[in-house]
Amino acid sequence: MSFSPAALQEKIDQKTKPPGSLGQLETLALQIGTLQESLSPQLRQPHVLVFAADHGIAATGLVNPYPQAVTAQMVQNFLAGGAAINAFTRLHQLGLTVVNMGVNAPKEQFEALSPARQDQQQNFPALLQYPVGNGTANYATAPAIQTTELAACFLAGQEIIAALHASGCNAVGLGEMGIGNSSSAALVLAALTGRPVAECVGMGTGASGDFLVQKTKTLEAAFAFHQLDQKAHQPEEILTCIGGFEIAAMTAAYLAAAEKKMLIVVDGFISTAAFMLAEKMAQSKGESLLPATVFSHQGEEKGHQWMLAHLGAKPLLQLGLRLGEGTGSALAFPLLQSALAFCNEMASFASAGVSKA
Amino acid sequence: MSFSPAALQEKIDQKTKPPGSLGQLETLALQIGTLQESLSPQLRQPHVLVFAADHGIAATGLVNPYPQAVTAQMVQNFLAGGAAINAFTRLHQLGLTVVNMGVNAPKEQFEALSPARQDQQQNFPALLQYPVGNGTANYATAPAIQTTELAACFLAGQEIIAALHASGCNAVGLGEMGIGNSSSAALVLAALTGRPVAECVGMGTGASGDFLVQKTKTLEAAFAFHQLDQKAHQPEEILTCIGGFEIAAMTAAYLAAAEKKMLIVVDGFISTAAFMLAEKMAQSKGESLLPATVFSHQGEEKGHQWMLAHLGAKPLLQLGLRLGEGTGSALAFPLLQSALAFCNEMASFASAGVSKA
Repeated sequence: MSFSPAALQEKIDQKTKPPGSLGQLETLALQIGTLQESLSPQLRQPHVLVFAADHGIAATGLVNPYPQAVTAQMVQNFLAGGAAINAFTRLHQLGLTVVNMGVNAPKEQFEALSPARQDQQQNFPALLQYPVGNGTANYATAPAIQTTELAACFLAGQEIIAALHASGCNAVGLGEMGIGNSSSAALVLAALTGRPVAECVGMGTGASGDFLVQKTKTLEAAFAFHQLDQKAHQPEEILTCIGGFEIAAMTAAYLAAAEKKMLIVVDGFISTAAFMLAEKMAQSKGESLLPATVFSHQGEEKGHQWMLAHLGAKPLLQLGLRLGEGTGSALAFPLLQSALAFCNEMASFASAGVSKA
Repeated sequence: MSFSPAALQEKIDQKTKPPGSLGQLETLALQIGTLQESLSPQLRQPHVLVFAADHGIAATGLVNPYPQAVTAQMVQNFLAGGAAINAFTRLHQLGLTVVNMGVNAPKEQFEALSPARQDQQQNFPALLQYPVGNGTANYATAPAIQTTELAACFLAGQEIIAALHASGCNAVGLGEMGIGNSSSAALVLAALTGRPVAECVGMGTGASGDFLVQKTKTLEAAFAFHQLDQKAHQPEEILTCIGGFEIAAMTAAYLAAAEKKMLIVVDGFISTAAFMLAEKMAQSKGESLLPATVFSHQGEEKGHQWMLAHLGAKPLLQLGLRLGEGTGSALAFPLLQSALAFCNEMASFASAGVSKA
């Protein structure tokens, strides 16, 4: 039977349930089937990629309550299997890869630990090393990323997706780790939407009270320093001014995944900032990533709701998450699999001998 | 280490993540651990029970677009593994049992099919037969349920939970199937809250336009016939007037499950109506089922939001579901398991050598 969205919708409507009664799961099944051009869509080797890098501004301590060293410590925690994303990917049988895009630590210390996640069978490396440097420059006083560094980040994102796709994966969740990266994400939101920086800045890993005031002032100053309030800027320019290595790599990875017709599962605030940059780049070529994309959740970081509204996105989960690491993506996969299970396994009214309305 | 809620909260707060950053999953872990009095709570043999029965008023065709025969046809579909709840329980490795509380069909026709779900290993029967009759009386003109029938429904709910608990299960989702039962649920909501019947009646499996007007008028008349608008009524009285065999059995099952300290996972509109009756019965003894209960989702049936608000419940999912069968419960289990996975498997700041804020 040849594929058409109408034929898939008809298949869904013939399942033994009132039409539309599985709500968003029906929308998902139709979307994924249309992306895969299949009446029996499948998630093959679903995988979460966690892009990690450090941020020069974090070393000032002005925007983040946790010390910068936590980025490297958490990468080690990922490789040892002890983080939240490990618990969720193990439970839901998802692959997991940590990508070192430029953590402020010798890369050899991660090699020694990898591959440690022997409890998780997967045919893709648990660690990929693409360090562009020891973290971005402090964008309070200089561009965060050099042009050559940005090209290296984009290339990394493309290569990783190409390799993941070649390994047999057709569905990927992107997550991140990088102390200070909610600040970059807030500035991306402000630059792309024109919303005031103060409205885009949120608690991140835990800024509140006086600390949040200081974080906001610091970021307003950085935004003005780069003249991001002066005119509309291209994604590449925004990334060089106030981006992060991990955010840049994710931007390219989203674009590459959509090109491969992989299902993209977007995580929280920082991951969505990178997605907005990628979508803007796609739009400049008259394209859109949205047909390939599912938004896993609406997070607790206040700017996330505006990102999702800007994209016209309807998130699957609203659990008050604000962790990152791809955790929301991982939690959404059972719903995606449920959508395909009903589409592929349920009886039809005819096959089950059930009367219609 | 002896259990206290404070000790469990401390364990959760020591996990390698900003405190509170897993949102509702942290609340769930604390709730389930407190219910089980364990710092390492577990879901053992999680199971979905689908209570099925027919409703006399459905034979009139005034309240339901699907013919009454669909109840029996769907029970056969459950037993053959072809319904949505089968797809979801298989995928998420949940046990599944269909309980015939009084479907309008010879019970032998179900025996011949059971146990058909050989693809699902479980140590509890796929079918339980407790038929109280061939469906309730038409409550437009008579009490739906006799007092002796109500006692039989309550006994069934108690016996089934006792047996399920004895088999090793400590977490149960309750679902239902019964053409016409959204009408009973709407009247339960009206009777327990005083909200006008017209606001409580919704589309059910698909009533809209003129049909919805007719459904509403029929139910307003039934409500008045039983004088449910005259004064506050006890749950048992509401059930005999306008209840269903499956709703009555579920009411008793909720009470029995809470007594056994099982985790209760509430499904949609009809399941929540039964829960409201059970909670009211518990309250009359100075107790509450809420510490044992998780609300899986907010459904699309309009009255469901008012039920959840009345109970002060925060549902886990909002996916626009309106199917019943326990499908929302089944979809919530991966989130419950995720909550326990982070609680039991994640490293602590100390064990992983990660710095704190």
